[in-house]
Amino acid sequence: MAAGPEVRAALRAQAVETPSWAYGNSGTRFKVFAQQGVPRTPQEKIDDASRVHAHTGVTPSVALHIPWDRVDDYAALAEHAASRGVRLGTVNSNVFQDDDYRLGSVTHPDAAVRRKALDHLLECVDIMDATGSRDLKLWFADGTNYPGQDDIAARQDRLAEALRAVYARLGEDQRMLLEYKLFEPAFYTTDVPDWGTAHAHCLQLGPQAQVVVDTGHHAPGTNIEFIVAFLLRAGKLGGFDFNSRFYADDDLMAGAADPFQLFRIMHEVIGGGGLGPQTAFMLDQCHNIEPKIPAVIRSVMNVQEATAKALLVDRAALTAAQTDGDVLAANAVLMDAYHTDVRPLLAELREEWGIDPDPMAAYRRSGWAERTVAERVGGTAAGWGA
Amino acid sequence: MAAGPEVRAALRAQAVETPSWAYGNSGTRFKVFAQQGVPRTPQEKIDDASRVHAHTGVTPSVALHIPWDRVDDYAALAEHAASRGVRLGTVNSNVFQDDDYRLGSVTHPDAAVRRKALDHLLECVDIMDATGSRDLKLWFADGTNYPGQDDIAARQDRLAEALRAVYARLGEDQRMLLEYKLFEPAFYTTDVPDWGTAHAHCLQLGPQAQVVVDTGHHAPGTNIEFIVAFLLRAGKLGGFDFNSRFYADDDLMAGAADPFQLFRIMHEVIGGGGLGPQTAFMLDQCHNIEPKIPAVIRSVMNVQEATAKALLVDRAALTAAQTDGDVLAANAVLMDAYHTDVRPLLAELREEWGIDPDPMAAYRRSGWAERTVAERVGGTAAGWGA
Amino acid sequence: MAAGPEVRAALRAQAVETPSWAYGNSGTRFKVFAQQGVPRTPQEKIDDASRVHAHTGVTPSVALHIPWDRVDDYAALAEHAASRGVRLGTVNSNVFQDDDYRLGSVTHPDAAVRRKALDHLLECVDIMDATGSRDLKLWFADGTNYPGQDDIAARQDRLAEALRAVYARLGEDQRMLLEYKLFEPAFYTTDVPDWGTAHAHCLQLGPQAQVVVDTGHHAPGTNIEFIVAFLLRAGKLGGFDFNSRFYADDDLMAGAADPFQLFRIMHEVIGGGGLGPQTAFMLDQCHNIEPKIPAVIRSVMNVQEATAKALLVDRAALTAAQTDGDVLAANAVLMDAYHTDVRPLLAELREEWGIDPDPMAAYRRSGWAERTVAERVGGTAAGWGA
Amino acid sequence: MAAGPEVRAALRAQAVETPSWAYGNSGTRFKVFAQQGVPRTPQEKIDDASRVHAHTGVTPSVALHIPWDRVDDYAALAEHAASRGVRLGTVNSNVFQDDDYRLGSVTHPDAAVRRKALDHLLECVDIMDATGSRDLKLWFADGTNYPGQDDIAARQDRLAEALRAVYARLGEDQRMLLEYKLFEPAFYTTDVPDWGTAHAHCLQLGPQAQVVVDTGHHAPGTNIEFIVAFLLRAGKLGGFDFNSRFYADDDLMAGAADPFQLFRIMHEVIGGGGLGPQTAFMLDQCHNIEPKIPAVIRSVMNVQEATAKALLVDRAALTAAQTDGDVLAANAVLMDAYHTDVRPLLAELREEWGIDPDPMAAYRRSGWAERTVAERVGGTAAGWGA
Repeated sequence: MAAGPEVRAALRAQAVETPSWAYGNSGTRFKVFAQQGVPRTPQEKIDDASRVHAHTGVTPSVALHIPWDRVDDYAALAEHAASRGVRLGTVNSNVFQDDDYRLGSVTHPDAAVRRKALDHLLECVDIMDATGSRDLKLWFADGTNYPGQDDIAARQDRLAEALRAVYARLGEDQRMLLEYKLFEPAFYTTDVPDWGTAHAHCLQLGPQAQVVVDTGHHAPGTNIEFIVAFLLRAGKLGGFDFNSRFYADDDLMAGAADPFQLFRIMHEVIGGGGLGPQTAFMLDQCHNIEPKIPAVIRSVMNVQEATAKALLVDRAALTAAQTDGDVLAANAVLMDAYHTDVRPLLAELREEWGIDPDPMAAYRRSGWAERTVAERVGGTAAGWGA
Repeated sequence: MAAGPEVRAALRAQAVETPSWAYGNSGTRFKVFAQQGVPRTPQEKIDDASRVHAHTGVTPSVALHIPWDRVDDYAALAEHAASRGVRLGTVNSNVFQDDDYRLGSVTHPDAAVRRKALDHLLECVDIMDATGSRDLKLWFADGTNYPGQDDIAARQDRLAEALRAVYARLGEDQRMLLEYKLFEPAFYTTDVPDWGTAHAHCLQLGPQAQVVVDTGHHAPGTNIEFIVAFLLRAGKLGGFDFNSRFYADDDLMAGAADPFQLFRIMHEVIGGGGLGPQTAFMLDQCHNIEPKIPAVIRSVMNVQEATAKALLVDRAALTAAQTDGDVLAANAVLMDAYHTDVRPLLAELREEWGIDPDPMAAYRRSGWAERTVAERVGGTAAGWGA
Repeated sequence: MAAGPEVRAALRAQAVETPSWAYGNSGTRFKVFAQQGVPRTPQEKIDDASRVHAHTGVTPSVALHIPWDRVDDYAALAEHAASRGVRLGTVNSNVFQDDDYRLGSVTHPDAAVRRKALDHLLECVDIMDATGSRDLKLWFADGTNYPGQDDIAARQDRLAEALRAVYARLGEDQRMLLEYKLFEPAFYTTDVPDWGTAHAHCLQLGPQAQVVVDTGHHAPGTNIEFIVAFLLRAGKLGGFDFNSRFYADDDLMAGAADPFQLFRIMHEVIGGGGLGPQTAFMLDQCHNIEPKIPAVIRSVMNVQEATAKALLVDRAALTAAQTDGDVLAANAVLMDAYHTDVRPLLAELREEWGIDPDPMAAYRRSGWAERTVAERVGGTAAGWGA
Repeated sequence: MAAGPEVRAALRAQAVETPSWAYGNSGTRFKVFAQQGVPRTPQEKIDDASRVHAHTGVTPSVALHIPWDRVDDYAALAEHAASRGVRLGTVNSNVFQDDDYRLGSVTHPDAAVRRKALDHLLECVDIMDATGSRDLKLWFADGTNYPGQDDIAARQDRLAEALRAVYARLGEDQRMLLEYKLFEPAFYTTDVPDWGTAHAHCLQLGPQAQVVVDTGHHAPGTNIEFIVAFLLRAGKLGGFDFNSRFYADDDLMAGAADPFQLFRIMHEVIGGGGLGPQTAFMLDQCHNIEPKIPAVIRSVMNVQEATAKALLVDRAALTAAQTDGDVLAANAVLMDAYHTDVRPLLAELREEWGIDPDPMAAYRRSGWAERTVAERVGGTAAGWGA
């Protein structure tokens, strides 16, 4: 299966955004296993992210998480990033880690808490203005743990009100990406539990509001690629938070748990015309027990391989078999691409791009891990609280 | 917990529609266990349905399934129903049991099959005109079994086209109720897999298109009452197909598997102003191993009990506790109603309504079961094929 | 439905153990919302537990978690408990919160880590000797996050070796309760993921090894009461960790999410002869957003209510209907008990026992909450790390 | 990644049994779409199975299903198979399609029904004697639909009694393979719902009783390869029913839904020493919408490819990385094999074996499909009822 120039160009153009928090410590409610050499500042997170870009060539931007990455001077932070060969990307809000948010943020029964949460969201747009970020990603931990705890519909009203206020604040080149999640940390209702809810709110808001699909945020059995195809058809797919899972929101490396699913998703992205900068391809994962930078590199490579395979699908043959109603032939066309080993192609492309064909080995050889362990001594390692 | 006049009036006004097919034989792919005395004609199904109404007082209408209940003269069928004290209700289309529908109906890759399916749907509206039915319920088995089998987005286009054609054919007092289902009989993609998809299509179509929630059609862990609350808030809840499940679309008696869930659903219905004729409360279940008429009676009683409990919720106290953020108090208000034994209340109401306080016992004593076993000899018992 | 003397006696004899950690702070990986008045020491946790016993009359023992409840003098701790009217109960080991356990404890690839973990388990038996505890509850967070990470079968060998060593150390009146859990914190394999695994190990070990069922540790759709019935029939049900869940291991209050399931479980417990001291009825839950002591009281009441309803099942009528193959009648016998409002019965019994019929109100009136908020100032609030 | 002689020998030795019923019509409860050319007799099913063997070279035996494949003269049937180049394999019992089995077979409350079911199972062993089959595969549809319907523990007693009687009847070279399934057709309890139940019964019975793993019979999220590894370690893995699923027991082609899972399963099979004739590798799937013979061929090829990839795992490197606790390196070793395109290797091997390197194309060219459509006219097409 030969990869033509379009395939090569598409792989060259692909950009995956890595999240600043993936470079810090993370864990489960049971334990955060601290690792050595972990960054202590937003700047050091960016330094780590720049290493991933250096070795993969396809991760030119870093997502920020506010307040974890709050700094006094965002222009200086952007310059720091530029000096490392990357740029600041999506701004992620956080309205779930203050004691005030025990019962919610923008959906909290108390108007004062809602105001505080909204102010934070508006601050995030201020930061976007400073960083030049295009996208504001909104994930709400809001929900309830017990039947009766709060009024489901009233919480939707409060949510809609906050979203309208944020939407009104957006600049004309800025977008709001609304994320949904089935459960956790809320265990009875979640205020944006599924794509249907996110989509309905985005429809109400307008064209700058888009849905973001986190691949770990669905009920068991949910067909994610269907959602992707549907949102693309509706012009409402803003982007992805890639990660993988066997059970719940496990946040494992993208492509690690179900590489075939990732391929099917990329197949729909391509079929729906979504493989371009209008779709934000982001990672959002936790490297609880494995070293973080190589885990991010591996995840990026997994996304690349899924993309390459999806690009190799013989779409003319596929459409012909589909039109004929030839179930086995159509499936075979898709599987033929999936079964292709695209690693040699990607290695070849990396050489074309002037980087090492084996990013994992190159990173290992770079000495970055040893150097950060040696140098990043003292201070407080970054984690979900900072 | 005293039941005031509003509670009593609401229970008196409640109407649950029973489905003609629940009175016929049903089963799993492994086996249909035929029962004795099962109706052989639409008329006999209506006779059985009238028995449920006679004993419960709250099931005045019978849903039809076309072609299973196809007759030459629908006006005569309506008269038959009226003579039995019930009326014809929702018309259910069937575009899944013809060999042509192996790869879909309105989403089939072949335009000729799509046309055939659409013609059937339009015929169903003709029947509605004849029967005076308000609602057309659309459930599509359409989907695919294998990745690549067909184009997900193209199938949405075809679906939208068919829905538009049917919608255009509706009379001004008629509605289209669009049902969704996660899977089965399709095992990879389903063309209307979730409420989000149904809702998006209904939004496109207009106010006469509404979503119907079948309580057995969701992924594990889905919070159904959230969907109910959301759709009511959006003015898009058309009705329910009640049944219950432990696993998939088990189609057990409503309230049998999770009575607390049914209560929570009715709590949202009431809170959202949905307890009225604009919401079609229907049963859709299969009595594979238990006798059918008493199973329907039991299901109706389960719905009544859940409704009664939800009506007993002290909403002022609930709102107060919610506003205070008092999690345990709010939960306790809800649970207080749920834990109340409403069977005495319902027995009392039935006596007021002039029917036996114990519908199950009254049905047993009526001799209907023995009579139908004796009389319904010969012919072909009704089932999912007829 | 009159409750005879056997029912009353059974409810009087019922004992539910509360966990020391339920009184401390807990949360999700996203946030631990600290509460005021939370205990700072094992002694204060016991004080709180004694309040639950004072108001419910059925929680005479407190489970310990080592090292969170490690003290220098366990005899003194036992005396403290006695002075508060309770006793020390099950000892829970913790081999998941040390950095050494990143890749497992007793199943870790490194023998030195395994030894460390085993030493901790043996220390727990030492503590049992000191406290007079009967049961050692073992839950292992051990597992892997990625395919290939470790050898599944080798980990079973290591697990079996450790269990044998602990079993050999047990006194003749001591038991090992082996807990299973589908996932979390491990996200690919868990070394004791299901009851089948726990049961197989316990069979190998001998009669003092028993399985403990945590109601939140199963895959979606798992029928927990089947497992309970099976284990009781096999003589291998050691006890329960009660809590409830809508999604994963949500650790909500027992009976809050699915009271019917809790009833069905208690029905099997009673049917299998398990309602006695040989079965350890324990709570294991997290009160992340609600106040902890009243949440425990509510949970205990929920267990009592489920037990009372299960005791009211007319077992003779049930067996008769089952023997007749009368599906609806058998189901109706069970549901008749479930629908009974047993709160008046329990209130009456509490008065007989000399306690307030309304434990929640009595606790509120007691002023304990205000007192602990005022007095427990300074120090470090107890949580999952202490 | 070069495939050494051991890999080639293992692939040459691999045998996959195909099920007679896969060649007949099948469907869902909604519809069985009849196909043309479908066999009408056990002999014609064997003819079809022989075509799969002719093109793949690895399916030398055909599983029978009694009574669907009941014949007067099993020796003659075996001769027919031999004349077609295949042999009769596992005998599958059926105690779920008679009206008597509405409430169960060997667990039915009525002793007469239990006796009838047991007699059928014993007849199956008689047939095994006649056919020379080694394995009796037992799957029970037994269970209940409603809480209270029957006594869970009593049903286990009845099950154990029947299994003992069948076990006692086995010849010394015969085995009983006990299958488990979470649900369907029973929707509340299933009498053998999980591997733990099957394993416990097999332990009681003795060494000739073994567990069979159907890959579609688990709760969502269940880690099947863990079960495989556990059973192999315990000497209790009798075999597999391969198929694949996205939702429930979808019975899609093996490897179609999650090829990575199939690879992981084969990896555990090989690691546990299970890749040999003592493990029965069987297909059990339904080709509802696709043509049956090529679907079986594709499934066999998928199993071969998963096996080939698993054989290519560098186990020395894997063990080294696991021992080092190098999570990413260990995962990479496994994924390296998975990502390898083994289709050229298998094509090469087929040429060595004297068959066409492309079984799908060879079958298409053979004209068998057209020939059977032309010749198999009249009679009753085989299906789940015959």
